[in-house]
Amino acid sequence: MTPFLQLILVLAIILFSAKLAGFLSTKLRQPAVLGELLVGLLLGPTLIDLTHMAVVTDTHLGEVVSELGELGVLVLMFLAGLELEMRDLTRSGKVSAFSGILGVLVPVGMGLLVGEIAGMDFSHAMFLGLTLGATSVSISAQTLMEMKMLRSRVGLGLLGAAVFDDILVILLLSGYLAIETGGSGLQLIIVLGKMIIFLLLSVAFGLWILPAITRVISRLPISQGVLTLAIIILLVYGLAAELVGGMAAITGTFLAGMMFGRTPEKGKIEEGLRALAYAFFVPIFFVNIGLSVDLHAINLTVLWLFLGISAVAILGKIIGAGVGARIGGFTWRESLQMGIGMVSRGEVGLIVAKVGLDQGLLNNNIFSAIVGMVLVTTLVTPPMLRASFSKSQPHPTKPVIMETKEPESMSDQEAV
Amino acid sequence: MTPFLQLILVLAIILFSAKLAGFLSTKLRQPAVLGELLVGLLLGPTLIDLTHMAVVTDTHLGEVVSELGELGVLVLMFLAGLELEMRDLTRSGKVSAFSGILGVLVPVGMGLLVGEIAGMDFSHAMFLGLTLGATSVSISAQTLMEMKMLRSRVGLGLLGAAVFDDILVILLLSGYLAIETGGSGLQLIIVLGKMIIFLLLSVAFGLWILPAITRVISRLPISQGVLTLAIIILLVYGLAAELVGGMAAITGTFLAGMMFGRTPEKGKIEEGLRALAYAFFVPIFFVNIGLSVDLHAINLTVLWLFLGISAVAILGKIIGAGVGARIGGFTWRESLQMGIGMVSRGEVGLIVAKVGLDQGLLNNNIFSAIVGMVLVTTLVTPPMLRASFSKSQPHPTKPVIMETKEPESMSDQEAV
Repeated sequence: MTPFLQLILVLAIILFSAKLAGFLSTKLRQPAVLGELLVGLLLGPTLIDLTHMAVVTDTHLGEVVSELGELGVLVLMFLAGLELEMRDLTRSGKVSAFSGILGVLVPVGMGLLVGEIAGMDFSHAMFLGLTLGATSVSISAQTLMEMKMLRSRVGLGLLGAAVFDDILVILLLSGYLAIETGGSGLQLIIVLGKMIIFLLLSVAFGLWILPAITRVISRLPISQGVLTLAIIILLVYGLAAELVGGMAAITGTFLAGMMFGRTPEKGKIEEGLRALAYAFFVPIFFVNIGLSVDLHAINLTVLWLFLGISAVAILGKIIGAGVGARIGGFTWRESLQMGIGMVSRGEVGLIVAKVGLDQGLLNNNIFSAIVGMVLVTTLVTPPMLRASFSKSQPHPTKPVIMETKEPESMSDQEAV
Repeated sequence: MTPFLQLILVLAIILFSAKLAGFLSTKLRQPAVLGELLVGLLLGPTLIDLTHMAVVTDTHLGEVVSELGELGVLVLMFLAGLELEMRDLTRSGKVSAFSGILGVLVPVGMGLLVGEIAGMDFSHAMFLGLTLGATSVSISAQTLMEMKMLRSRVGLGLLGAAVFDDILVILLLSGYLAIETGGSGLQLIIVLGKMIIFLLLSVAFGLWILPAITRVISRLPISQGVLTLAIIILLVYGLAAELVGGMAAITGTFLAGMMFGRTPEKGKIEEGLRALAYAFFVPIFFVNIGLSVDLHAINLTVLWLFLGISAVAILGKIIGAGVGARIGGFTWRESLQMGIGMVSRGEVGLIVAKVGLDQGLLNNNIFSAIVGMVLVTTLVTPPMLRASFSKSQPHPTKPVIMETKEPESMSDQEAV
């Protein structure tokens, strides 16, 4: 088989398994995303090893699937942004700020403490702490979308907190590396300055230039012109977030979505992009998270480390982000939901860990344990989040914005 | 930049350039696809060398872009199939058969003759002829879609002829290789048998099983369930065409589209898939054709070979397919349109040429000339086809099927 035929085969298997698992998951009253993550584990090296099957001879196949999945998470966060309006976020600004900041500081501090207790020196223990800081809310956002809770107080607070979380983790990491490599305070200021420049530029472009461009394109005889424009802007914002702002690409695409959410073409973009996302890219993303894990790599040392780190990661986030939300003005129940929503880690945590492995700041066992922690936090978040909502009163958190009508294809959000 | 950021950058550039060039092309009253092909040439190694820019260090980037483009052509042929109904094709069966068969035999014979005149032995000359046989109608199908002529007599005849073309080229090539490698007539029968098995199985599945599956899926709470099903079946049909039938993957996805065209979910699938196709995959496909060409590789010998081979390729197809269509019952004008529509070559021609290069049946110069011929036939087909339609009376070929209503989003087909 040619590499392309191998890709087709693997994509067909991934899409089929993802939808089947998602469906079974909803039948068991769990979020569809949980099933997709688990089926990824089964298809991964632990059991079937999809991208290294006997018929697969293309060594880059795994990379291609992974890149398609990464495109998926960019689109996913764009859609999350599209559903929001900026005043939603600013309204929940206070709770987001407290929750996002404490949600980083508490797990980082706990990780540092655990590292020190385990006999690591300050430098290594601090880095371990840092790997526990970065939340990835794409899983929670997806779960809340399925429950139609993304526009609730908790959903909006969560999305806002993720932005603070992202900024703070990158500041801490940059500061740490600047100090470790003998850098100056100047470097830290540069990092902060880059973020501010990116945020200012992207918001200014989105507010004052994007609406005009969108209006012009929508009138030209270009097939799927507005949708293509949205995809191009999404890619450019993701790129600029990384290159200009030094931030995560998903933060950029989330912002891009929010900007398009203010245009009259919002509905059309949402419809087309949801087709693109949920019928192709997003299932690949969720399955690929599982694909990248090999449970065989776990030995007893790793297992203990993994259990300890996971406990710290989960408790640290729930306590930190939860207490932050409470200080910010949420009820205890909402604060718990918020804390749980912040538990899942994602690619940022993995990237930080990879940097640490490459620079000798983490050994192989701790690295494996962190990879396991990222997976576990991702797996436990959807059911915990669902449980935290269902245990409460029938209407635990009323949607804040009632006047905005639901998109017609809302039923598509029922399941992944 | 990480490989993924490089991919994002290149995709953003490709999508932007493709839509801009397509738009300018329509302003000049040319098909949008022509602009997309030409902009691919500019972005390719000839001028800008997009996938090898200074910032691009990922050696697999070109492959990934190419694979995304190949997914695009699969989707494109699925959409072409979706627009048809089987009775359309059987109605144009006679003209398609004659045009498809003569459209292969004449250019193959002319190529053989030219090779013999140029002093090649029979075996090599015959192979040269074979590389000129395979039509790729995706470009013509796209051009006709833009002109809303895909469902005309010529459009339907063309799509049918492409199936005969595909079958005959593969039979001839298999027969040739069987004889060259000292195989028996048995191998030829096996090749033929495999095709028949694939066609029977895929049509039977499409007629009797697919409608039921589609009905069930459309009722389940799976997000974009029917659309994902269509994508999965599209991939599987493409795969099966190659692996079971030994045919081109695009023939398989074309069949898959025809099968879904019979389901009540046709409209929904078409809408979602068109978003997926025209806002992402298809522009990448057309640009990538240009990306794969390096005009610097042309020297004087190659230039002469290229001119000769291109002339034979263009004239051979127009004469062969045109005369075939006339015998089949078309008017002379329709026959000319049909002949022109069959001119463009594509990936099948390139694949055959690559096999010849690897097995020493073609030398490097002839191979380069054939690559150039594939590009030229692809570039000249859209404007020639458009001209052949506009020169005739206001309604040169009335749509055969009038009762079928146009899809609502037909305007999306205006431009690529």
